[in-house]
Amino acid sequence: MYDFTTPFANPAGSPIRELFKYLSEPGMISFAGGYPASDLFDVDGLAAAQARAFAQPTRCLQYGPTDGLAELKAQIIALMAQRGAPCASEELLVTTGSQQGLDLLLRVMVAPGDVVVTEQPAYPATLQALRLQQAKIVTVPVDADGLDVAQLSTLLRDGKIAVPKLLYTVPTFANPTGATLSRERRIALLKLAVEYRFVIVEDDPYGDLRFSGEAVPTMLGLTAEVPGSRDWVVHFSSLSKVVAPGLRVGWTVAPPEIARRCVVAKQTVDLCSVPWTQAVAAEYLAEGSLTRHLPKITEAYRLKCEAMCNALRDKLGDAIQFHAPQGGMFVWARLAAVKTSALLPNAIAEKVLFVPGTAFFADNVDEASLRLSFAAPAVTAIEEGVARLARAMGATGK
Amino acid sequence: MYDFTTPFANPAGSPIRELFKYLSEPGMISFAGGYPASDLFDVDGLAAAQARAFAQPTRCLQYGPTDGLAELKAQIIALMAQRGAPCASEELLVTTGSQQGLDLLLRVMVAPGDVVVTEQPAYPATLQALRLQQAKIVTVPVDADGLDVAQLSTLLRDGKIAVPKLLYTVPTFANPTGATLSRERRIALLKLAVEYRFVIVEDDPYGDLRFSGEAVPTMLGLTAEVPGSRDWVVHFSSLSKVVAPGLRVGWTVAPPEIARRCVVAKQTVDLCSVPWTQAVAAEYLAEGSLTRHLPKITEAYRLKCEAMCNALRDKLGDAIQFHAPQGGMFVWARLAAVKTSALLPNAIAEKVLFVPGTAFFADNVDEASLRLSFAAPAVTAIEEGVARLARAMGATGK
Repeated sequence: MYDFTTPFANPAGSPIRELFKYLSEPGMISFAGGYPASDLFDVDGLAAAQARAFAQPTRCLQYGPTDGLAELKAQIIALMAQRGAPCASEELLVTTGSQQGLDLLLRVMVAPGDVVVTEQPAYPATLQALRLQQAKIVTVPVDADGLDVAQLSTLLRDGKIAVPKLLYTVPTFANPTGATLSRERRIALLKLAVEYRFVIVEDDPYGDLRFSGEAVPTMLGLTAEVPGSRDWVVHFSSLSKVVAPGLRVGWTVAPPEIARRCVVAKQTVDLCSVPWTQAVAAEYLAEGSLTRHLPKITEAYRLKCEAMCNALRDKLGDAIQFHAPQGGMFVWARLAAVKTSALLPNAIAEKVLFVPGTAFFADNVDEASLRLSFAAPAVTAIEEGVARLARAMGATGK
Repeated sequence: MYDFTTPFANPAGSPIRELFKYLSEPGMISFAGGYPASDLFDVDGLAAAQARAFAQPTRCLQYGPTDGLAELKAQIIALMAQRGAPCASEELLVTTGSQQGLDLLLRVMVAPGDVVVTEQPAYPATLQALRLQQAKIVTVPVDADGLDVAQLSTLLRDGKIAVPKLLYTVPTFANPTGATLSRERRIALLKLAVEYRFVIVEDDPYGDLRFSGEAVPTMLGLTAEVPGSRDWVVHFSSLSKVVAPGLRVGWTVAPPEIARRCVVAKQTVDLCSVPWTQAVAAEYLAEGSLTRHLPKITEAYRLKCEAMCNALRDKLGDAIQFHAPQGGMFVWARLAAVKTSALLPNAIAEKVLFVPGTAFFADNVDEASLRLSFAAPAVTAIEEGVARLARAMGATGK
C-alpha cells in the first residue's frame, strides 16, 4: 500500500529484541539481553540526585541545549579526566544513550557505499545501523586480545580492502566477545588510523566494569602518546551500564569539526536529550556517587561472572569453549558440534534464553557460537540457567 | 580534513537556535523561541507524579520498550480519545518529542528526490529535516484559514506538481502563522489524500492551547468521516507545550504498517526514549493533572496574546499587519516597507528578539514578515518588548 523505498523502512526488528517476547514467560531465566541488574541500581543515590535536580525545576522542565546541559557536560569532562581521557567542552555532546551517538555519527560521516570496518563478531545494533546507512561492512576477526590489528594492517598495506571511513570497535570487554584489546594493539591501531586517515570509533560502555586483570587505557586516552591520532578518534560512553539505562545518558567525544556537525544533526533529530535526567545525572556525578557505587557493582558482576564460568565448566565440560572475561557483562562461547540457533527452541522449552551467535556476524557466520550475559540474573539463577542449558543441549543431541 | 559527503554533515545550525546566544544578554526580551513559559509549569503536580513514578524505580531506571512504556501508551490512548481522535496501541509510538517522530517518519518514508508538500510559511526545523533527507519541497500558501487546499487540488489535478509522498501541516494554531485550517478544508484535504494516495502529516503540538473561537476536530479525528482516509494520516503530538518540554514526551499515531517500521528504525536510533520521564508523564496524565492544568495555561496565554496584539496595534498602528490567533504561541506579522532581517540587529540593540520571516520560507521569501512568540515573556515584558520593537523600527527608518 505504501511505497517504502528507503533503507530505513526495514520491517525486521533487532534479533535480540525479538527474544524479549519470551521474557514474560513465568520462570524464564535470561542470559540474552545486555540489561544491567535492576537490583544493583543505586535507587537511594538517584532519588537524592533527583531531589537536588528538581530543586531547580526549570532546568529539568524547559528545553535544554542541543549539546547537553552545561552542568552535566562539566561532570562528564571531570569523569573523562578521571578515566585518563581528558576532553574539552567543544569535543563533547550528550546523547540519548551512546546508541544515538553512533546514529548521529553515521548520518554525518557515512554516505552509501562508504567502507566501515567492524570487529567480527560485533554488536548487532551497530551492524544494523551500518546496514541501514548503506555502509559497506568489512570485518576483521577478534581473538582473546581483541581486534587482530596486524591482520588489518596487512589488508590495508596490500590494498586488499579499501581505506575505511570508520573503524568501529568495543575495545574493552567487547560485546559480544568480552575480549579487551591489548595496549600494544591500541597503539598500533592509532598509528594505522593516522597513516591511512580513518576514524576509529571507540565504543566504551563497559570500561568501568573491570573485575580482574590490569586496566588498559582507552584509545581516546592513548591519543596523547601517538602524534596526530587525536584527530582520528571518536569515543562513545554512557551511564547505562554503570548507573542506569533509564537515564538514557550517553555521550560522544569527537574532534570539534565532527562534534559540531553531530550537534547540528541532533537539532533536527530531537532538539535535545531529556534535560530532566541530564540534571539528575549531573547531580549524581557531582556528589561522587558513581565512584562510591562502582566497587559494589563490579564486585557483584565479578561474582556473577565467576558463577557462570564455573557452572559452564562443571555442567558442560568439553562441550563448551570460552575465555573468562575480565569485566563487562558477557561470556562468548562455542559449543562442540551444536548449531546454537537449533539449540535455542530447546533452551526456550527448558526456560533459559541466550543469543545465538549468528546475530553478531556480518559474514562467515560461526553457527556454533553463542552469547551469554551474566549481568541481570542472580547467582542462583545463573547456576540453574546453565543446568537448563545443559539439559537443552542433551535434548538437541550433542 | 574529513570527507563530509553526507547531506547530514551540514555545518549550519538552526536559524532560530542561532538567536539563542542573545538570550543571555541582560535585560533581553525574547519573542523568538517557541518555549512555553517556565513559570506556568505545574511543578507541584510533576513532583507528585515523579514521586509516584519512582515508587517503582525499576520501571524508571531500566531499558524500556522501543514503542514506549505500556502505562504511558494507555494514558495517551485515553487522551487521544478525549480529544476525539481515538487510536489503537499498534498505531502508537512514543518518541523523544514529536521532532523525533518526524525524523523517524522521514527516514522510513522519504527517499532522496521524493516530493513533500509543506505549508508556506512553515516550521523551520521541518524544512531543515526535509532538506537533510533530500526531499523535493513543494510549497502551498497559507491564508487565515490555513493551507489553501483548493490551490493544492488544482495543482494536483492539472499535473503542475507531482503527487507527493507526504504533505506536512500544522493545521491548528500553525507555527509560524497561528492560522487554523477550517473544518471544510480538512475534509477536502482528507479526500485529496485518499484520491491521490499521499500521507498527510498532521503535527499537533498546540491544539489544546485554544483560548478563543470554536474547536475544530483534528485531521486524525475527521478520518472517521472520510472513508479510506485513516490509511493516509500520520499524527504527531507532544506534552512539550502543555506540560513541559523537559519530559521530551512526544508521540506518533500512524497506520500500523508505518508505525511498526518507525519502531524498528527507533531501535537503531536510540533503543528507547527515557523511561523515567515516560513514567512521570504516565502518572501525571493518570491523575487527570493535565485536564486540571490546561485551563490555567490557556488563560495565561490568552492574556499574553491579547497584550501582544493590543501593544502591536497601539505602538505600531498601520506599520504592522497581523491576524490575532485563537490559540497557540505565535503572532505572524508583516511590516510595511521594512525588511525584518535588516530590522533584527536594531531590535537586538534595543534588547528585543524576534525571528525574521525568512527562516520559514522554502522559496519566495516574504522579506517583510516576522514571527513573534508571546508564550514565554510576562505581560509587562510583552508590552515593553513591543515598545522596543517600535523604537527599533524607527531606527531602521521605516
